[in-house]
Amino acid sequence: MDEDLVTPWEVKACNSHGINYDKLIVKFGTSTIDDALIKRFERLIGKPVHHLLRRGHFFTHRDFDLILTAYEEGKQIYLYTGRGPSSASLHIGHLIPFIFTKWLQDVFNAPLIIQFTDDEKYLWKNISLKEMESYVFENIKDVLAVGFNINRVYVQINTMAMHQNPLFYPTVLSIQKHITLNQVKAIFGIKESDSIGKCAFPAIEAAPCFSAMYKKIFRTNENVRCLIPCAIDQDPFFRMSRDVAPKLRFLKPSLLLSKFIPSLQGAMEKMSSSDNSTSIFLSDSPKDIKNKINKYAFSGGKDTVDEHRKFGGDCSVDVAYQYLTFFMENDNKLNQIRKDYTDGTLLSGEMKNYAIAAITAKLVEFQERRKLITSDHISLVTNYRDLSL
Amino acid sequence: MDEDLVTPWEVKACNSHGINYDKLIVKFGTSTIDDALIKRFERLIGKPVHHLLRRGHFFTHRDFDLILTAYEEGKQIYLYTGRGPSSASLHIGHLIPFIFTKWLQDVFNAPLIIQFTDDEKYLWKNISLKEMESYVFENIKDVLAVGFNINRVYVQINTMAMHQNPLFYPTVLSIQKHITLNQVKAIFGIKESDSIGKCAFPAIEAAPCFSAMYKKIFRTNENVRCLIPCAIDQDPFFRMSRDVAPKLRFLKPSLLLSKFIPSLQGAMEKMSSSDNSTSIFLSDSPKDIKNKINKYAFSGGKDTVDEHRKFGGDCSVDVAYQYLTFFMENDNKLNQIRKDYTDGTLLSGEMKNYAIAAITAKLVEFQERRKLITSDHISLVTNYRDLSL
Repeated sequence: MDEDLVTPWEVKACNSHGINYDKLIVKFGTSTIDDALIKRFERLIGKPVHHLLRRGHFFTHRDFDLILTAYEEGKQIYLYTGRGPSSASLHIGHLIPFIFTKWLQDVFNAPLIIQFTDDEKYLWKNISLKEMESYVFENIKDVLAVGFNINRVYVQINTMAMHQNPLFYPTVLSIQKHITLNQVKAIFGIKESDSIGKCAFPAIEAAPCFSAMYKKIFRTNENVRCLIPCAIDQDPFFRMSRDVAPKLRFLKPSLLLSKFIPSLQGAMEKMSSSDNSTSIFLSDSPKDIKNKINKYAFSGGKDTVDEHRKFGGDCSVDVAYQYLTFFMENDNKLNQIRKDYTDGTLLSGEMKNYAIAAITAKLVEFQERRKLITSDHISLVTNYRDLSL
Repeated sequence: MDEDLVTPWEVKACNSHGINYDKLIVKFGTSTIDDALIKRFERLIGKPVHHLLRRGHFFTHRDFDLILTAYEEGKQIYLYTGRGPSSASLHIGHLIPFIFTKWLQDVFNAPLIIQFTDDEKYLWKNISLKEMESYVFENIKDVLAVGFNINRVYVQINTMAMHQNPLFYPTVLSIQKHITLNQVKAIFGIKESDSIGKCAFPAIEAAPCFSAMYKKIFRTNENVRCLIPCAIDQDPFFRMSRDVAPKLRFLKPSLLLSKFIPSLQGAMEKMSSSDNSTSIFLSDSPKDIKNKINKYAFSGGKDTVDEHRKFGGDCSVDVAYQYLTFFMENDNKLNQIRKDYTDGTLLSGEMKNYAIAAITAKLVEFQERRKLITSDHISLVTNYRDLSL
């Protein structure tokens, strides 16, 4: 394999440096998030942007400037992101887009649609729809514990949403009419032996890009602009959505796309729900977190303390340091840690302790919030309803 | 073309004798409806079967014997048929399966599901969903005027039904999971340049074969056996449904399949909604009917009266006679007409007059009933509801 593999269903770097994101920008044809764009964003909202954006974890975009222009003009926009419910607990990699989405929701005071693609997971995995139900329930709790303004959240569980929303199927159908078999094969690598469900599914993930199907949510006949914060592997769905949009007289969705959080073993692979030793789950106890990071987190330190003191560690491959860039909000402290590790003052075990402390603090807080999520909250967000102000 | 073409979207005979139905039976792998089966049916219901069955217009079946056995055992069965709403008025060819279905509904006292595939027509034709709405409305009136027991009819308009019935999409999804792209290409001739909507659609026509998706209609958790009366060109959908059924632990649907009513020009083609001169529409006036048959109906008579008297006419290609076999219920009278025509006693014009009279009588009656169909009736049948006794 001499090229990184990045599809909605598989992500694998071709070497130990991890995914080459610069190459992905060229391959996918997205735009770099440059300083000018960030400065404009900060000027408009009157405060610094989120550290996930500032530190380049959200590293590329499509038409995000149009979202800023709409915001500048006082127009309503909405947010759309999603979750494929294939396991009972999310891991910290899943959390990243949701944390950032929460920040965006606050900043834009925007309605948020979170699509649960239980249909996709049923088609791709060996999970029955019945079994999926409990995953969906547990995953919604995880997502809500991120702290959204739930009065402006609609959690769209696909297998239920066709029944809830009379415009869902007609919208999906109109998208399906304008995409050929050739195209889904080229974009998604669908094969002859794949199910027709897999051929049809991309239109289902595309549909929520278009506000026209949410008449009840927005109470307007005008197209409302959509911003999708998600990991880069989901881009193919939205590239396709953007191709289809003009044919249906819809607006193209805008995107803010993130890198992946590395697995404990390093940047070759992203975290996987199905492999406990690669991931830190949102349900992990402080003890689990400590053990996993100490035992598995790939270190950029040297083999001996003496060597480390002499030559210093390599933050660019150190998984504990990478995690800190996601979870430690204080820029000064993070900079100091990077400096100290690079010149050998800070040892590998100490770096891991910082990561353990930061992640544990986040997850303990998260788990406390999760305990407060009730079935009433779930009923509220899964109810298809007016989210306009 | 050295073989008849019979697909759900195109029917064309390879020579002027029309479709070779015996070959279709072999090609599709259906069973012949023999005397023994008809005798058993008549014994069970205590009366003669409908002339469309007796005269071989419904000429082949799949597992119809299982329907008779269920009936014999006092078990509930249900009927499923459909309509693709691509024009404002049905023609007499469309009427045939509905006339026979009405008779079956009476005989079995069965709930009937009539699927309106507005989604299919949207995908295959250049008709907007908006435009389709009026076709659907007018077509439902046509269908109801056949005289069903509307208290046991659910007219399922696909683009609305996903919203009405919470089990429609999950059922479609489970079918889509078990059919490959390879299969829809082989069964339906789907091409690379076709839309993914066309790939996905067969599962939508398949779904109503399975009672599990109609929990509200049948009020039982047991599988209810389904009988589908339809024209032979729809068989591919149900061949596919029967393949999928065991994988989902559903019962295979049974089928009674009909030949096509010939176009006015003869048996090479079936009637077409888009060509006025090939078809007699249900909205045609007595004058229209008279003109069309006199002007267009292909005659099996000889070129001159003298020759006709001498050599006789050929009922096997005479369109007016063919129509009588569909619409004249009296066997003795029909036999006499055939005899008289064959030996030259009856002239071509006289044969046409018989056809005009029989069809006009049917359509005048039909049009009277159609006038009585109100929007209340339409609201009733399109409401997804309990149809159990």
